[in-house]
Amino acid sequence: MSTVPDWITEPDTPYLLIDEAKLRNNIDYLRQRIESLGSRLRPHLKTLRTLEAAEYLLDSKNAPATVSTLAEAEAYAKAGYTDLLYAVGIAPAKLARVAALRQQGISLHILLDNMMQAQAVIDFAQQSGQDFSVFIEIDSDDHRGGIKPRDPQLLDIAKALGAHFTGLMTHAGGSYACHTEQGLKDFAKRECDAVRVARYKLESAGLPCAITSVGSTPTAHFGEDFSDISEVRAGVYTTFDLVMKNIGVCDFSDIAMSVVTTVIGHNKEKNWLLTDSGWMALSRDRGTAGQSQDFGYGQVCRTDGSLLEGLCVNSTSQEHGVIELTDDYQPEDFPVGHQLRIMPNHACATAAMHPVYHVLMSDGSHNTWQRIIGW
Amino acid sequence: MSTVPDWITEPDTPYLLIDEAKLRNNIDYLRQRIESLGSRLRPHLKTLRTLEAAEYLLDSKNAPATVSTLAEAEAYAKAGYTDLLYAVGIAPAKLARVAALRQQGISLHILLDNMMQAQAVIDFAQQSGQDFSVFIEIDSDDHRGGIKPRDPQLLDIAKALGAHFTGLMTHAGGSYACHTEQGLKDFAKRECDAVRVARYKLESAGLPCAITSVGSTPTAHFGEDFSDISEVRAGVYTTFDLVMKNIGVCDFSDIAMSVVTTVIGHNKEKNWLLTDSGWMALSRDRGTAGQSQDFGYGQVCRTDGSLLEGLCVNSTSQEHGVIELTDDYQPEDFPVGHQLRIMPNHACATAAMHPVYHVLMSDGSHNTWQRIIGW
Repeated sequence: MSTVPDWITEPDTPYLLIDEAKLRNNIDYLRQRIESLGSRLRPHLKTLRTLEAAEYLLDSKNAPATVSTLAEAEAYAKAGYTDLLYAVGIAPAKLARVAALRQQGISLHILLDNMMQAQAVIDFAQQSGQDFSVFIEIDSDDHRGGIKPRDPQLLDIAKALGAHFTGLMTHAGGSYACHTEQGLKDFAKRECDAVRVARYKLESAGLPCAITSVGSTPTAHFGEDFSDISEVRAGVYTTFDLVMKNIGVCDFSDIAMSVVTTVIGHNKEKNWLLTDSGWMALSRDRGTAGQSQDFGYGQVCRTDGSLLEGLCVNSTSQEHGVIELTDDYQPEDFPVGHQLRIMPNHACATAAMHPVYHVLMSDGSHNTWQRIIGW
Repeated sequence: MSTVPDWITEPDTPYLLIDEAKLRNNIDYLRQRIESLGSRLRPHLKTLRTLEAAEYLLDSKNAPATVSTLAEAEAYAKAGYTDLLYAVGIAPAKLARVAALRQQGISLHILLDNMMQAQAVIDFAQQSGQDFSVFIEIDSDDHRGGIKPRDPQLLDIAKALGAHFTGLMTHAGGSYACHTEQGLKDFAKRECDAVRVARYKLESAGLPCAITSVGSTPTAHFGEDFSDISEVRAGVYTTFDLVMKNIGVCDFSDIAMSVVTTVIGHNKEKNWLLTDSGWMALSRDRGTAGQSQDFGYGQVCRTDGSLLEGLCVNSTSQEHGVIELTDDYQPEDFPVGHQLRIMPNHACATAAMHPVYHVLMSDGSHNTWQRIIGW
């Protein structure tokens, strides 16, 4: 990309910019990849949390999708989407909101990994007459929640749930620590194998499992065999980010999100630029800090999206960013009022700071998308 | 505090809880302190960014206040507040919004530290006939922006600004690195001395300086001599947080903000609790990581606000928190559905994640406050 339309300098900075052409490419690539391997995507909508992005991610109103909050489920249901997995272990107090959506005909699936949660679902169902659709979370990589595929409690929970039980779900969040192609392939296999083993255990005990769901952006892009896997989830691939670049899942040129910022001053003694994008615009996420290349609070680019090699946002306060210039650059190259773009470490975290996104459409026109906020 | 009203368990988690009695105490303490030292506060409204909090912080609609964005200035102006300092170096493209507020009779003061910004102000004023009120930022601690008090450019900028020039401002953000009482006292003196020297330089050159403005929460609490200082700014003292506790500015019991969360599972092998508060609710801020005590993503408390000693949120993903139990606790102490409160590392960052705050009033009743969002 070498030219951008004039409007890009017009919104007050800092603002979040989405490149629609890149977004569409990222979405189309993974959809084709997963379908060519015989599975289907259940995209996670948590990165952008907008109705407009959902239209790119989902082929139809009945396509499967994943959400991270009930606020999202309610907003997407209102827009007509019908097949939603709320992929955070259910808190019993949230069952009433789940039931309300199911009463509207939404296939809202919930997630759990222990008998206390299952009992809460069973009790609520008995008292209300409302049926539920439950995924049991499998721990495939020891990094967060879920039960191990060979844990006998798996059968106890599925039995107790009875007709409420729908399927098995795992998320290989540990894949973020991989940084070789073979490592990612192995991790994807491990993720799939965990639910394969769990399903075998259930089916051997006469407990049918309708859906097996796996996924994370790295494993969705490197898995080679999704046989017996109903669906693959991924979210941040929508826009990608510097964490994914470091893992090796995307290149700089695939990153569809940036924060547009303005130079407001210089510290010539230190060779610093001061900008109007602090952590309020970029987020406090330092996800690249422990990776092969640390991008500080983000990689600095020109407004046309091209990289300014070696420049990142080195520190932030609430509404200030500091860019320490390398010897290749002089403060005079970036006068007060000059605009720059910052690629984010972690797109989910950066998007979360912005109630509105500005979208550069592939024909150069300008759209704005409203984020669904809250829980 | 040992009892809390029942409503505290009712809002869906995660949610942000403000303790109004503590908030009021924090606000009253600093106001009395600064007034007894002969100066006055210009509170920074950036921590909570709500009209309701402004009513506690400001005695009248004409009281001086500080904001971090023009969105705040516009919202507070609409609510009738008239004396606002936008304390981020002005980007020339934002002058039209500043002018629009000044045309409405709002004393909106802007900040700058270089001749390019000053020239933009002068040019805009000449073309529009709009006058401005400008503070020049002084660098008192080498940590971000501003010009040094003895830098000859200070006089050049003030002269160029002419009637637009109002005063001098500095922010000793470097005080956050202090951790002894004497260190904080010395830092406060250094902050005041920087603007005293700068004012002397200006006045010796026949350039009157109507206002001298200093401040940060640590220096506002430890400064001993504010003579010749018109006003002191501070923001996070409204609710305080764990970073301020580590610096020594407050105690745990002063912290007026927490995130209420629900236990959604356990990893018994690892002695972990899983909760529904990830970084989306707590923020990615790890401000205590480099301090004397690292609280992870926050200190864990009971719902009555009392500390669970030794427990913090050790890791987060978007909507999950992991609390690693110490040997003093068993997972069974915290069953699924059990609620906890998390004290934040950095109140400004945590509040930024919540569009609505729930407020525990001192009479036990329940209010909700809406955050002013965007730029």
